[in-house]
Amino acid sequence: MKQGRVLYESTLHHVTEVDGRIQLKDGRLVEEHEVEWLPPVETETIFTLGLNYADHAKELSFTSPLPEPLVFLKGKNTITGHRGTTVRPEDVEFMHYECELAVVIGKSGKNIKNEEALDYVKGYTVANDYAFRDYLENYFRPNLRVKNRDGCTPVGPWFVSKEDIEDPMNLQLRTFVNGEKTQEGSTKDMILGIPELIEYLSSFMTLNDGDMILTGTPKGSVDTKVGDEVMTEVEGVGRLTNTIVSE
Amino acid sequence: MKQGRVLYESTLHHVTEVDGRIQLKDGRLVEEHEVEWLPPVETETIFTLGLNYADHAKELSFTSPLPEPLVFLKGKNTITGHRGTTVRPEDVEFMHYECELAVVIGKSGKNIKNEEALDYVKGYTVANDYAFRDYLENYFRPNLRVKNRDGCTPVGPWFVSKEDIEDPMNLQLRTFVNGEKTQEGSTKDMILGIPELIEYLSSFMTLNDGDMILTGTPKGSVDTKVGDEVMTEVEGVGRLTNTIVSE
Repeated sequence: MKQGRVLYESTLHHVTEVDGRIQLKDGRLVEEHEVEWLPPVETETIFTLGLNYADHAKELSFTSPLPEPLVFLKGKNTITGHRGTTVRPEDVEFMHYECELAVVIGKSGKNIKNEEALDYVKGYTVANDYAFRDYLENYFRPNLRVKNRDGCTPVGPWFVSKEDIEDPMNLQLRTFVNGEKTQEGSTKDMILGIPELIEYLSSFMTLNDGDMILTGTPKGSVDTKVGDEVMTEVEGVGRLTNTIVSE
Repeated sequence: MKQGRVLYESTLHHVTEVDGRIQLKDGRLVEEHEVEWLPPVETETIFTLGLNYADHAKELSFTSPLPEPLVFLKGKNTITGHRGTTVRPEDVEFMHYECELAVVIGKSGKNIKNEEALDYVKGYTVANDYAFRDYLENYFRPNLRVKNRDGCTPVGPWFVSKEDIEDPMNLQLRTFVNGEKTQEGSTKDMILGIPELIEYLSSFMTLNDGDMILTGTPKGSVDTKVGDEVMTEVEGVGRLTNTIVSE
């Protein structure tokens, strides 16, 4: 089931998707233009992977960070909903979208083993983990100016229960800028897959209900400009739209 | 005024410090051994500085990261209270305490200028931002295994209102391991001071009430072992005690 959170008539509603439409809990169907999308889940700790697809690392002229993944935290200030806007700072030349599968943790665990890792997953959503590469000094330093700006991480529109995704490690990822496809890949090309990431993170810290792991992006980053509409899509999970605005 | 949060008779109490004792809101005075200390404030986003004292950078054989500070986020899983315990992993050779002044933000702001930065500060507490240096690959990569383990960041015991601290940029920092002084410095030796850090962070993201900035540590890191009692002290703010335990 696809679940979302929207503002409709100024009130927060938990909604579900029915034949491409939005259903309120009382059964009413509403149109997308009538709602304001919120992030589909309340997030706790947000992890994000750098260079978790080899082809993307290569296009940035970086080597893969193995054996230790390049993973860091994002603040809640970065999260925004479907059909939201993200600011392009005036002084950057490279504002790169990053289409990513976002994994939502469903229960607390520590020292979780690879084989049982998916038991701790509640479901998935789509993320666009924008990077402002001008600010990046080197690939070991995903500094806050690159990855922690207000509203720089749209997520949504839907949260999809894990039961509805047969194989999260075999989903197509695509990005369209103003309708033109600019990025394509598959979650099967992650360097560290979802079970490995959960095993790694929980080996030194507790994962909790509501934590979210943004699993990285494949190659196909291009600069995006003010006014561009960026649609990131994960097969079976959803299509997330964001518009770039000026400061 | 020094304010804290404790569990007393299994109930959360907001308490104040009176002549070195703990006062409940109903006026009763309780002894330290009767309470369990919680972190003195509920934290939102937690920032931590790497190498913000030149002498500490030098002892680690790193250069200062200027002009951009080395700053990253910590998860709430890392925070623990006064008189708590922190685990030393079995496979490390270097578990370094880090005595730090922690700055607590009191209201939301973006693009805050240096001169008005302290208006956004609510007060201060003491932090011990343990680092497990074995896991550090290079100084650009303060990876999660080094800095984001459960309970690796004791804070407290008290939150001190900013009105009670005449000059936060001129406070002595000291660490004692089993009663022996092993670290000493002053906040006046920060590379980027509190106003500069607030100006920097708010230049690209909103700071909010409850956000906390751990401002870095001076030189004097030594390895600490299971059983060690580590007391980190910031002049006028408090003395924070933590005991190291095995896994």
